[in-house]
Amino acid sequence: MIISVKRNFSLIFLLLITHLAYAQNKILVLQSDFGLKDGAVSAMKGVAIGVSPDLKIFDLTHEIPAYNIWEAAYRLVQTVPYYPAGTVFVSVVDPGVGTSRKSVVLKTKTGQFIVTPDNGTLTLVAQSLGIAALRQIDEVTNRRKDSEKSYTFHGRDVYSYTGARLAAGIITYEQVGAELPKQVVEIPYQKATLENGVWKGNISVLDVQYGNIWTNIDSELIKQAKIKYGDVLHLKIFHQGKKIYEGDAPYSQTFGAVAEGKPLSYLNSLLQLSFALNQASFAEVHHIASGHEWSVEVTVKKDK
Amino acid sequence: MIISVKRNFSLIFLLLITHLAYAQNKILVLQSDFGLKDGAVSAMKGVAIGVSPDLKIFDLTHEIPAYNIWEAAYRLVQTVPYYPAGTVFVSVVDPGVGTSRKSVVLKTKTGQFIVTPDNGTLTLVAQSLGIAALRQIDEVTNRRKDSEKSYTFHGRDVYSYTGARLAAGIITYEQVGAELPKQVVEIPYQKATLENGVWKGNISVLDVQYGNIWTNIDSELIKQAKIKYGDVLHLKIFHQGKKIYEGDAPYSQTFGAVAEGKPLSYLNSLLQLSFALNQASFAEVHHIASGHEWSVEVTVKKDK
Amino acid sequence: MIISVKRNFSLIFLLLITHLAYAQNKILVLQSDFGLKDGAVSAMKGVAIGVSPDLKIFDLTHEIPAYNIWEAAYRLVQTVPYYPAGTVFVSVVDPGVGTSRKSVVLKTKTGQFIVTPDNGTLTLVAQSLGIAALRQIDEVTNRRKDSEKSYTFHGRDVYSYTGARLAAGIITYEQVGAELPKQVVEIPYQKATLENGVWKGNISVLDVQYGNIWTNIDSELIKQAKIKYGDVLHLKIFHQGKKIYEGDAPYSQTFGAVAEGKPLSYLNSLLQLSFALNQASFAEVHHIASGHEWSVEVTVKKDK
Repeated sequence: MIISVKRNFSLIFLLLITHLAYAQNKILVLQSDFGLKDGAVSAMKGVAIGVSPDLKIFDLTHEIPAYNIWEAAYRLVQTVPYYPAGTVFVSVVDPGVGTSRKSVVLKTKTGQFIVTPDNGTLTLVAQSLGIAALRQIDEVTNRRKDSEKSYTFHGRDVYSYTGARLAAGIITYEQVGAELPKQVVEIPYQKATLENGVWKGNISVLDVQYGNIWTNIDSELIKQAKIKYGDVLHLKIFHQGKKIYEGDAPYSQTFGAVAEGKPLSYLNSLLQLSFALNQASFAEVHHIASGHEWSVEVTVKKDK
Repeated sequence: MIISVKRNFSLIFLLLITHLAYAQNKILVLQSDFGLKDGAVSAMKGVAIGVSPDLKIFDLTHEIPAYNIWEAAYRLVQTVPYYPAGTVFVSVVDPGVGTSRKSVVLKTKTGQFIVTPDNGTLTLVAQSLGIAALRQIDEVTNRRKDSEKSYTFHGRDVYSYTGARLAAGIITYEQVGAELPKQVVEIPYQKATLENGVWKGNISVLDVQYGNIWTNIDSELIKQAKIKYGDVLHLKIFHQGKKIYEGDAPYSQTFGAVAEGKPLSYLNSLLQLSFALNQASFAEVHHIASGHEWSVEVTVKKDK
Repeated sequence: MIISVKRNFSLIFLLLITHLAYAQNKILVLQSDFGLKDGAVSAMKGVAIGVSPDLKIFDLTHEIPAYNIWEAAYRLVQTVPYYPAGTVFVSVVDPGVGTSRKSVVLKTKTGQFIVTPDNGTLTLVAQSLGIAALRQIDEVTNRRKDSEKSYTFHGRDVYSYTGARLAAGIITYEQVGAELPKQVVEIPYQKATLENGVWKGNISVLDVQYGNIWTNIDSELIKQAKIKYGDVLHLKIFHQGKKIYEGDAPYSQTFGAVAEGKPLSYLNSLLQLSFALNQASFAEVHHIASGHEWSVEVTVKKDK
């Protein structure tokens, strides 16, 4: 009898643990275009730690170029999958603050939450991780006390406050606000393709620290051509349709596989086709940037 | 008898907890002009976490321009109020390190502590939040062990060490050192005024990430003229008395209320009158900076 | 009898605590040349906090100039000693990623652990703090699950993952991998000397925020000449053997000891001979950099 009770208790305990594993985990991750030179990010953290001293607060980045929603979307999809299920992200890149864009919390199919204006920021996470649910923040109840007079710092008074309360388990996901159809505002962009032996794609982002070129052509599409390390890829880069660069880039497992300053192609940490110069900046040397206007065409060079 | 003892113990425990709730809360927030490129800030954190592994350590900013005490003062007043009572701030912008400036800990009337050289850094916090008490750090007892030989890194050996011990509750506020008169070193600056329908004030700081102009004219002073969204403000900006810019700036609830690139006026997150270009940098486009030499005159444009 | 058991239990408890004090302490400190503009550092932290929610994660710096192993080595020796024994550092400046350089964990004689490619990064820590033990990471067992396909982000999948598991006590130091001889890859550099009244040394690093010149001539070598504050040092700076700067720099306890803009010499926070302009940048004004090619000669000026 006693054993039985204990067993039941253990079961309940296990269920509880299991439930917690899928619920909020007190981890809060912040992203913005505020930079770190003033006190804005720190004020957001002050509000959050004031909500609950148990929160573990991290930064994604606060160096998103001002108003660059595309890059906010890209940094999220690059980072969210590496945090445990139950983590709450707050992303504030919000050129439309004060307009009619909705404030939402998306729950991914992998169990992370993202608190953000629904302005395109969710484009890539929604496509890559999937939408488990989407809710609109009820800004009457989910707003820092005494903040009604300030119209321009949603990042602190609504997003950080709500993200902190959700992460700490003070509110449930349901208490964020009304459920919305599982559809977010999406930024249009050219998808990666492989036709007649030619890969096409966008330069989705630069690896800013090193100046490497990251495309949206992923390893699955690369595999279809059965290339191997040492094969030479031929690369063309276009800006608004005009060719800016053309050259060869051996497909390499390591940067050291080519001489210093020479181009190579490789799969980056997101397993997407990328181009680099060994120990130099491809973007700087060849004046390449990223975004909608920048595209690539890649082929395998057959005869060396 | 035993029960009675237990009950008393519980009461004492509760009193202790209650006391702690109003005292230091293990949150430590660091500000400096050290930047994040070297190991100075990290060494400060190492000393702090070595004092107590229970501390929660945050950054305000470490990108204060070198030796700019005014900006240190401004970042504090922008941020301190958003952290819970009991939080300990350490601010190290210290051009006079090694001179006779005092090392102090101010307790605000709202319950936060600020550890800093008394060199003007406390100007705005003292005026805005009030001085509950001021104590001079006894640097003989409140100094990292074995640090006597190093004369130039007070930030790590005295300020971070003392801030950490105070935040962790290892020392009481009284143990910081002797009490001082409730008066700090103040940087003189032009106060905001409204006379004959003309607001005057300083450009106290730039919103560096976006290039917006933040003045010290607060919402209370704005309200006296009963302006409403859509009213047009007329702005003059002066550098050392010489007019640098003149133009109209509609008073707006949101940045989207004006066309891209156009000027607007608004209340920032500190509820102070500010000026911006929608999705562009006012400071960069019109070559405006902040500080003592920069002032504004603002009127309401009556006839459109 | 019961008392005896309790006493034994207390003893065991004390032994356990003592053991823990010398073992890993759940503190993880990250360094890289990734910068903070993209999601790389945040992904490393996500992996770490996913390993154990109890970790306390700090940054050393992520602004090491790309591929600059020397500076990575310097920042470590500047910072490691200020963290408690048991702290785990992860340093990822890795131009040879994918080549045959070993991935190792060094345990210093002062009890800190450093997880890094063995490419010179450990040069100064090994010389200054000593090598208690060195182990090569077994990358088969110590690798993030499902990360086998990604060849280029060792920082996240091997170093951060292994550092987190070590810091959290999930693996012991022995479980990192096989023990190696106590010898690391060292970058050659000119040691500091004093001969015939002339100090020679390298400019090991700049105090980047202020532009001060930091040499590798330490206080022990300075003391041999019995100089005192107020004595005037005569400084020559060479680049590749060619003299770039020559001038006097009074040996000062504080920056305020000389007029604004004037040169001084002092012991920095690492107790090494350094040169600065009071409230200006020596490096910028006189075009001085740091590294192997930069050396100094210093003498005491006898007759003023």
